[in-house]
Parts: sequence; structure tokens; C-alpha cells
Amino acid sequence: MFDDATIVAIATANGIGSISIVRISGVNALEIATKISKKNNFTPRLATLSYLYDSNNEIIDEALILYFKAPFSFTGEDVVEFQCHGGIAIANMIIDEALKYGARIANPGEFSKRAFFNNKIDLTKAEAISKIIEARSADAVKLLARQLKGELTSFVNEIREDLLFMLAYTEVSIDYAEEDLPSDIFEQIKNKIEKIKIKLSNTLDASKRREGMIEGFKVAIIGKPNVGKSSLLNKLLNYDRAIISDIAGTTRDTIEESVKIGTHIIKIVDTAGIRNASDVIEKIGIEKSIQTINEADVVIALFDNSKICDDEDRKILELIDENSNKEIIKILNKSDLENRFDKSNITDFIELSTKEDINPLIKKVEQILDSNTFGDEMSLISKRQVSSVEKTLYNINLSVQPLNSGELEFFAHFITEALESISSITRPYENDEMLDVMFGEFCLGK
Amino acid sequence: MFDDATIVAIATANGIGSISIVRISGVNALEIATKISKKNNFTPRLATLSYLYDSNNEIIDEALILYFKAPFSFTGEDVVEFQCHGGIAIANMIIDEALKYGARIANPGEFSKRAFFNNKIDLTKAEAISKIIEARSADAVKLLARQLKGELTSFVNEIREDLLFMLAYTEVSIDYAEEDLPSDIFEQIKNKIEKIKIKLSNTLDASKRREGMIEGFKVAIIGKPNVGKSSLLNKLLNYDRAIISDIAGTTRDTIEESVKIGTHIIKIVDTAGIRNASDVIEKIGIEKSIQTINEADVVIALFDNSKICDDEDRKILELIDENSNKEIIKILNKSDLENRFDKSNITDFIELSTKEDINPLIKKVEQILDSNTFGDEMSLISKRQVSSVEKTLYNINLSVQPLNSGELEFFAHFITEALESISSITRPYENDEMLDVMFGEFCLGK
Repeated sequence: MFDDATIVAIATANGIGSISIVRISGVNALEIATKISKKNNFTPRLATLSYLYDSNNEIIDEALILYFKAPFSFTGEDVVEFQCHGGIAIANMIIDEALKYGARIANPGEFSKRAFFNNKIDLTKAEAISKIIEARSADAVKLLARQLKGELTSFVNEIREDLLFMLAYTEVSIDYAEEDLPSDIFEQIKNKIEKIKIKLSNTLDASKRREGMIEGFKVAIIGKPNVGKSSLLNKLLNYDRAIISDIAGTTRDTIEESVKIGTHIIKIVDTAGIRNASDVIEKIGIEKSIQTINEADVVIALFDNSKICDDEDRKILELIDENSNKEIIKILNKSDLENRFDKSNITDFIELSTKEDINPLIKKVEQILDSNTFGDEMSLISKRQVSSVEKTLYNINLSVQPLNSGELEFFAHFITEALESISSITRPYENDEMLDVMFGEFCLGK
Repeated sequence: MFDDATIVAIATANGIGSISIVRISGVNALEIATKISKKNNFTPRLATLSYLYDSNNEIIDEALILYFKAPFSFTGEDVVEFQCHGGIAIANMIIDEALKYGARIANPGEFSKRAFFNNKIDLTKAEAISKIIEARSADAVKLLARQLKGELTSFVNEIREDLLFMLAYTEVSIDYAEEDLPSDIFEQIKNKIEKIKIKLSNTLDASKRREGMIEGFKVAIIGKPNVGKSSLLNKLLNYDRAIISDIAGTTRDTIEESVKIGTHIIKIVDTAGIRNASDVIEKIGIEKSIQTINEADVVIALFDNSKICDDEDRKILELIDENSNKEIIKILNKSDLENRFDKSNITDFIELSTKEDINPLIKKVEQILDSNTFGDEMSLISKRQVSSVEKTLYNINLSVQPLNSGELEFFAHFITEALESISSITRPYENDEMLDVMFGEFCLGK
């Protein structure tokens, strides 16, 4: 699964801070620590203050050293952490020494990957760790921390147990006479199937609603040309912007489109290219609006109070009616100008002027996002998890008909498929490539 | 000296990394850790893995907790470190919880300041820590690590002992008859004075030579208009640039002017405004060149191989002769063009074309900087230290005349002044304001 090299990497963020951590994992970790510190009596988990030396015997730094003896470490291997003075130079010097003594630079995600293969964490925990590091809001952290604690693992295990139970009794029914089985066994199985279906559906629903909690909810603006989309976009982008810009390490592009509203991060989806459309004729047709509505978690539809309600407006209003399952906020903009828009065309809207005060809109967005993220249901946190649950549900649904008609072989087949799908959430055994891709997305030192 | 609040701050660099550290120091540190972790059996120095909870009992993260019991901690107070998952969100959530439980955000340098007042570190060590965090080369780290280990503290203590010895015998001589003193005592004192003078001078010299090791050596380019200064500047700025640009957290301005040559960081001093002079008539007089030579550690003087040696060239050559104590590299540029410069005017120069290969120049710069930084002499690392040593030397020098003429009261006065100056390097007792300024320059969390 991986070579047995001892690996080293800086585990803290790049930049100026008072402490940096260099982490070494593998069979030679302790030997390397001994060479660098000239100490050899490390007690596991006990922080030891020591000078660190380079191979010329010159002092590099004074640092705390923490030794975690295999298998009681993050990776399950021998791990040594040097908690040295911050900045870039020292950490790099320690790494250089470790390389001289035979370690190699860790690949991104390699510490987590080793932890996975040594059974220290399952994939749900690995994914939670990877996402929690990049989380930008307290809500996201709390959602991810639940998975870190093993909520999804328990969920998977419960469903696996139920499926195994069904499979076992089904196999027995196929191979032996039915007399030895409880008389109501297929009723029990049908009940379990229904419960699992509800559980999986609820989880998918909750996950869908909360998808934006981790990376930001997508908010889009639609409306005919000159209705004020560009002006609203700029107002939104500057709303509480500072908080997001504080976050170092995120790409400039992401920063530009992320804004904090309440406890939520929102991403303004500029599908219409509103920002660069100032001196170009806007050609945003209905088709584009449909696409925008599909992609966004919340849609803001703008209408112009100072103009009569025309065909284009009416098309957008129809579109809104057709998407009643979507969160769409109707705004009658330019409330500061004389009313010419026939309000009988529109219901349940907010009147405002984006040039003046967009707070009523902000409050509405916050309220929608709050209600999206409320609730105790568990959430999935990655496309991989969602796709596995969908596949499980798909097979469960397929199993109902053969169960009812007594075609037990077919039933067993679908349950086996479902079992494989649900198990792959925590521990897929047969897909190395997928694991490489997944861990490769982790940050260095993790 | 400081309030007794429990303080909290993030101790690692801002950004995306796999681990962040939140540090709490003060009487309530352990109580706060207990509230956040719901654990209460912390063994000093022993890393404990625990979930962390917010005040609503929701899990924030799973983290390692390290407890250092007063006085065996960095600050000398009770200290708790949460080694949590990286990124910004979690560390901020832990800090928020600590604030709820009564801690306050630490001021920049406040951890170090407390360590100083609790006699855990003296000022030389505090300064070394502060500088080591911002160090950008291995050479700088090694220089600073020596001070971290206490080299300057020992140096100060030795001189203090000598001065105290002199002062004691001098006071005795003043107050009592001379018969009780060793007959050669003033010979001994004179010897000691001479040795101290040499020690202090050598230290000042070595420190001056190595000043650039920490923040970068200053390299300047002089020469008459159109000699190729701008082209050389660009070549230098692009030499091994990537290595420096890697360093996050440094200001853009610094990055733009820093280049790594060998193991050294150099800063190109653009005193002549060469970079922005492309379409402006250059008006760089001799006066400006004199200033440039004074400011720089290494000066590169350019002459044009394709033009005859004129008055301006000759003035620059004179200037070089007058500054023979300075490191000035003479370059006969445009060696690819036909020679018209009379080489009898110039000695000890390097012929090259900045448009082709500047490696001979790079090697020469590296060689000069190597020789500047060689040697085992101790270096001072801050203007504060240099100024204290200068003041000490000044008073020592003043003490020689009264010592020779037997005016012992005057001698004792100057030695007392010298004693105060040298002691202020490690532990100035009477200047709170200076301490506030000094620690205020530290980064947060240190």
C-alpha cells in the first residue's frame, strides 16, 4: 500500500508564527530524533525540552520534542514531533537534518493515508480532518467535528448490521427449509428495509440542504438587464467582507466571492458574468436563468419598481413559480424611484433600493440559511459519501420487488450490492486509485 | 509589571496547515482546559488526546492537550497548549471558548514578556526568539541560536564580574589604606580594562560585519548613466528568486528586493531609484554615490567597456580608492562590445556582460559575504544590544585616564556607568517603557 520510508513534513501553516511543528513518522523516527537532539531517553507522550543540532554539531534551535510510540500515534507508526520556534528557516533546517538521516519528504496526505492503512482512522474521519482544516465558519467545524467523532461511522455500521442480518436470514431461507426461521422474519426484513430507506433519504436530504455549510452556500442573482444586478452584487461582495479576507491561504478568487452572512459563508455565483458586463450588452436569456436557479442554494430575483412589468419579468416570475421547491427571494428594486411596476403581478416580495439599504435582503438570506442548517440530522460531507449513500439507496430500492415476490436470490444480490456501497464509505478495500486521489487532495503534513 | 489575567493566543502561523496550537497562560489556564476538554487529570508535560467542547456542549475538535505546571513552563506560569487541527476556524473557536471562561487575548509579545518577568528568559534570549522566528536563512538561525543558548548572557556576566571586581577593589582603596590590597592590584585592573576593551571592540566589529546575516546584506550598484545598472539590477533580482518568494508572511516589498546568494540573503538597495529611472534622465551625482557606499555592505561599481573612461568614471574610481575599507567590486561591463575603456585606469576588476553571464559577480559577492560571516566571534543581534555595548566601551575608555592618574572616584564613576550599560543587555531594571516597546514588536502568540 505504501513504502516503509520514514517521512517528514512541516505540520503547521507556512508563515510567521511563534511555533512551528515538524512531524516525522516511520520506523526511523526515534533514531532521527535522537541524532538531532542528542537525547535518547524519550518517554512516549512526554514533552522534552532539548537543543537541536545539525550534522556539524551546530545548534539549530531549542525545541519541545514529543514522541508517540507505535501504534499509539496518529499514523500508527513511531511518530516524533519537534515543536520548534516558528518561521520558515528553522523548520526547514530540521527537515534538512531529517532528510540527511534517511527520512524523505511526505507526500500530501501521506500521514493520514498511513493512519488509514494502519487502521487508526477510517475514511470518514480522514475526510473530516481534511475538510476541517479548510473550514471557514464555526458551523462548518461543528458539522465536521461530528463526523470526526465517528457519527457517520456508527451510521454506516448500523446499516451494515441490518443488511448483514437480512442477508444471513435470506441465505438460510434459500439453503434450508423455512421452518427453522422465525415466522415473521420477512415482515421484520420488510420493516427494516423501509426504515433504512427513510434513514438514507433523510440523510441525503439533510446533506443536500447543508451542502454549502462547508464551502459556502451558493447565492445567485437573476433579473432582466439594468434591474440592478451589478449594483446588488457589489453591495453583497462588500458585506462583512473583512472577516473572510482575514483567512490566509485561500486563493484570491475564493476570497473575492465569499462573504459572511450571520454564521454562514456564502459564495456569490457570478454565472451571468454580471461583474464584467458593465459595458457589454447583457444577453442573459431565460435558459441561463434556469441554469442559475439549478446551481444555487438561494436565488435573488430582481424586478424594477420604476419600470412597467414586461414580458421578460413575467417569464422570470413563471420560472419562479415552476421552481417552488427552490429558495427564491423576490426583490422589487429601486423603491426610491416612482412606482410603475404593477404589484398585482408579484407576491411575497421585499421592496428596497439596492443603492440604499440591503439589510432586509441580508436578513431574509440569513433566515433561509439558518432553517437549512438547523436540525440534528447527520450530514454527509463529501461527494464521495453522497454517491455511496445514493448507490446504497438505489440497491435497497431495487431489492423491494424481489423481496415481495419471494425471489430471494435477487433480493440477496441487491442487498449484497447495498452492503458493498455502504461499507465503502468507511473502508473500501478494492480501490487503491480512489484512495490515492482522495489523500492526494490533503494538505502537506497531514 | 503586568496584570494577572490568563492570556490566550494562537501560537502557530495563520493559514492552512494540518496542526494549529492555541496557547493559554496564567492562573486559570488549567481550569479553562478542564472546562473545554471535560478532563481534569492532566499530568504535566504528558500529551493527552481529548475532544474539545464549546459551552453548548457541542464538539469543536479532537486535539492533543499539553499542560506545563508553573514554574516549569515557557512563561513560568501554568500553561496549556491545545494542539488542534489546523486552519483558522477551529483555533478561533477554542480561543472564543477560553475568552468565555475568563481569559483575554494576549498582546503581541506578552508570553515572552511574562517569561522575562518570571525570570525564565533574559532579554538576550527574548530577542533571539523574536528574531529567529523571522529569520530567512540557515546562517541567521545559527547565529541567533547561539544567543538563544546564552552566549551573550555569559559574555555579559563575565564582563560584569570583571567590572565588579575592579569596583570592589577601587572602593576599598578609596575608603581604606592601600596596604591591605595586593600590591599589583592596579596593574591587574589595567590589564583587565585592556582585555575588556579588546573584547568589546571585537564584538562590535564582528556584529557590524554580520549585521546583514539576519535581515539580509545590503548590496548597492553605482556607476554613471547607461552603464547597465538597471539591467544588472533585474538580473540580480531574478537570481534564485523563487527561494525567497516562498516565504509567506513577509511583506511584498521585502520579497521584491531580497535574493538568496549562496547561504546568504541579500537586499538590493535601490538608492538610485534605478528601477524607475527607465524613461527619466538619471541624475545620480557623486554625493548620492557616497551615500550609497556608506549604506551598503557590498557595492558593485559599474564601468562601460565600450566607452572611453571619462571624468565621471574617474570620480567614481577616486571614491572607491577613498573607501578602501569598504567591500567594492569593480565590474567592467559590456565586455561583448568593442573595448574603448582604457584599462590602465582600473585595477582588480571583473570583465563581463550583464546581458550574458553575471555568475563571476555572484561568486565574488558570495565570497565576500562568506568571509564577512566566517569566524567564531560572538555577534550582537539588535540595535539595542549594539548601543549598550558601545555605551559600555565609551565609559571604559573614559575610565582609563582617571585610573592612570589615580583619580579613583572618577574611575569608579565610569566603571559604574559601564556596569549599568553592560547589565542592561540582559536585564534592565528601570526602563518599563523600553520593555513595552521591545516586546510589543514580537509577533502575536509569542
